[in-house]
Amino acid sequence: MNKSIQAHQLNPYAIQLCTLGRWIAQRQWSPIGSGLFSIRTSEHSALFTDTSKDKNELSPADLVCFDLANPHQPDTVTAVHQFLYQLNPENKVILQTQELQATVFSRLIKADQHLFVGYEMQHQVAIDPAQRSCCPLVILEPQATELILQDLKQRFHREALPYAFLIRGHGLYVWGYSVDSAKRHLEAWQFLIACELERIKASCHFNS
Amino acid sequence: MNKSIQAHQLNPYAIQLCTLGRWIAQRQWSPIGSGLFSIRTSEHSALFTDTSKDKNELSPADLVCFDLANPHQPDTVTAVHQFLYQLNPENKVILQTQELQATVFSRLIKADQHLFVGYEMQHQVAIDPAQRSCCPLVILEPQATELILQDLKQRFHREALPYAFLIRGHGLYVWGYSVDSAKRHLEAWQFLIACELERIKASCHFNS
Amino acid sequence: MNKSIQAHQLNPYAIQLCTLGRWIAQRQWSPIGSGLFSIRTSEHSALFTDTSKDKNELSPADLVCFDLANPHQPDTVTAVHQFLYQLNPENKVILQTQELQATVFSRLIKADQHLFVGYEMQHQVAIDPAQRSCCPLVILEPQATELILQDLKQRFHREALPYAFLIRGHGLYVWGYSVDSAKRHLEAWQFLIACELERIKASCHFNS
Amino acid sequence: MNKSIQAHQLNPYAIQLCTLGRWIAQRQWSPIGSGLFSIRTSEHSALFTDTSKDKNELSPADLVCFDLANPHQPDTVTAVHQFLYQLNPENKVILQTQELQATVFSRLIKADQHLFVGYEMQHQVAIDPAQRSCCPLVILEPQATELILQDLKQRFHREALPYAFLIRGHGLYVWGYSVDSAKRHLEAWQFLIACELERIKASCHFNS
Repeated sequence: MNKSIQAHQLNPYAIQLCTLGRWIAQRQWSPIGSGLFSIRTSEHSALFTDTSKDKNELSPADLVCFDLANPHQPDTVTAVHQFLYQLNPENKVILQTQELQATVFSRLIKADQHLFVGYEMQHQVAIDPAQRSCCPLVILEPQATELILQDLKQRFHREALPYAFLIRGHGLYVWGYSVDSAKRHLEAWQFLIACELERIKASCHFNS
Repeated sequence: MNKSIQAHQLNPYAIQLCTLGRWIAQRQWSPIGSGLFSIRTSEHSALFTDTSKDKNELSPADLVCFDLANPHQPDTVTAVHQFLYQLNPENKVILQTQELQATVFSRLIKADQHLFVGYEMQHQVAIDPAQRSCCPLVILEPQATELILQDLKQRFHREALPYAFLIRGHGLYVWGYSVDSAKRHLEAWQFLIACELERIKASCHFNS
Repeated sequence: MNKSIQAHQLNPYAIQLCTLGRWIAQRQWSPIGSGLFSIRTSEHSALFTDTSKDKNELSPADLVCFDLANPHQPDTVTAVHQFLYQLNPENKVILQTQELQATVFSRLIKADQHLFVGYEMQHQVAIDPAQRSCCPLVILEPQATELILQDLKQRFHREALPYAFLIRGHGLYVWGYSVDSAKRHLEAWQFLIACELERIKASCHFNS
Repeated sequence: MNKSIQAHQLNPYAIQLCTLGRWIAQRQWSPIGSGLFSIRTSEHSALFTDTSKDKNELSPADLVCFDLANPHQPDTVTAVHQFLYQLNPENKVILQTQELQATVFSRLIKADQHLFVGYEMQHQVAIDPAQRSCCPLVILEPQATELILQDLKQRFHREALPYAFLIRGHGLYVWGYSVDSAKRHLEAWQFLIACELERIKASCHFNS
């Protein structure tokens, strides 16, 4: 066992991220080992899960250290994590999941965002009082990494996103200032998306 | 450990409420620690769950004693519990949950109540023979606490509610004269709401 | 412990029925202790579950012996069990469940039966080759016990039912010539009903 | 215990197939013991599950050795396995499941295939870059074994199938070059089918 692995295993943040990762996997929110979870360890570094690992058995030794200042062109998901860490030094934990209902929802809504209205649960993710009554979930198109990052920059420029957005057909990104808040945001968004999907399925009854 | 905590831990009602609370949490009916559960300990006092605690690990030491005669303006959920205890001295246990299907149902139905007809399960919650064949579930609008309590008073004045009502987008309130009856009413209403939501989703097939 | 209870506890059929009952309860097919399960012990006697017991913890001591030749007017569910045992001496196990999807299905279909077509699973319950390609599920109206039994007699007179029927809003009745076959028929009908309900929910997309 | 059974129990592929079989059964993807799973042991032989066994308790001793070169006319499911092994010597594991959502999907789609578009998950099953953006799932009609095999030959002649096809109302066939890849293909197709079924159910809202 080398020094780097030992360091991860003793890192309390690494242990917390793995616990959260296994909790996510148990809920079937990262099917076939999909999803990428990371936690910031310093201003310019973070620990990332390894995509090839079964997330039901995630342990600190499976985490990979990543230099956030690194200009290398990684895959889209890693690049988005990198972008979010650079955007706000307070962003501590980032979770990308590929859950069924979020995937369906991102395909169903044709607009570039969906407004959530009328759910008490919005309080859990609202950035400001306005979002408590009307909370936007941005939906990006899957495209080349550079274009996704460019679109993302414009969205954040327009308004503060409530700790989440979707890439159509690819999954949900959620973040927080701690492991606990990232988990709470993930659970709240999963609830909101599942509610809205159910509401849409039932609404056709009243439309006809 | 202080006297108050010891008292709760020895209180058989507290232990029962915590057992029920963990059962509710395991069914995912109180996501992100949402929901408020309480049990009457005397004419003017009750034990309440602490909203900040994970209800999967609820124990008597997490319960907070509350003076029901207290005129303080608490949050809406606590105020509604207080109202229900004052309404009927027989009300012993009150459960507020924020379950997905009840939330969706409360958003879907635009009227101020929904009538359940044709389910054998209505027998479990009916106050009188009339409700066995037609059982109303009242839906209140989310608004200022005082207005909710005022609306609630008028609804109870009009007719005895079958141990439950909804606040639109906020969750389901259920109560009973014992831990067992409150649990039975909760399970019956969850069943009825889930059935009706499924029925509505499937009905559009026959409408078109 | 009295002799009668000892007899049940040593009865291998009683043990099998309780095992099956707990399996049914774990699948949430008998919410709030609903459902009635029974097993024939002789030409004119059977063991019945006690409706007041939580079926997750069903044990032989909870079973009640019932004289099938008894002319007493019991509740509808017991009377239907009695009818089915008298109808065919080979009927050995009868299961009445109040599962969500069967309940919704029975409310959704307005006709007095629904024909299942195109499912390989129909082979598991078909009485004859004709039912393999078109398998009827009879739906009775909830009414006075005598009228239900009269309707049931007419349905059986018209054709052999494929080991199941529904009472609208009340639940599903399934039977078999052994514990294993009753379990297989229950599982097959739950599958068929759930499939058809899903198909109906998705069909409105193609109708419009 | 005879030599043949001992051989299976020591066969690492047999152990892997049984582990996968129990995983499938736990997800309720092979109700009532349905489904047939097999693993190639040589160019002309494979181990098959016994349809009469509960797949929750599958063990190597339950597997039956089958001569793939055997011209005997077996049942349709076995014949399809045999066909797939003969089609490509690299096909190592074949799984036939009778899961609810795949069954409903196969009944819902009237065409002889369905094209999956817009899901990142398509990468898991795509044979080539074209299938990453548009991935066909072939649906065969249930008919005599010979006609099914004939239809299947024509479909494979037209294009390489992405490791799966459906027989309408009968279930899903999935295969892979190893136990791991067959499992991954099964999980990916279950995800894709469940997503598409949800999308269809919700789409009627937007059509009307």
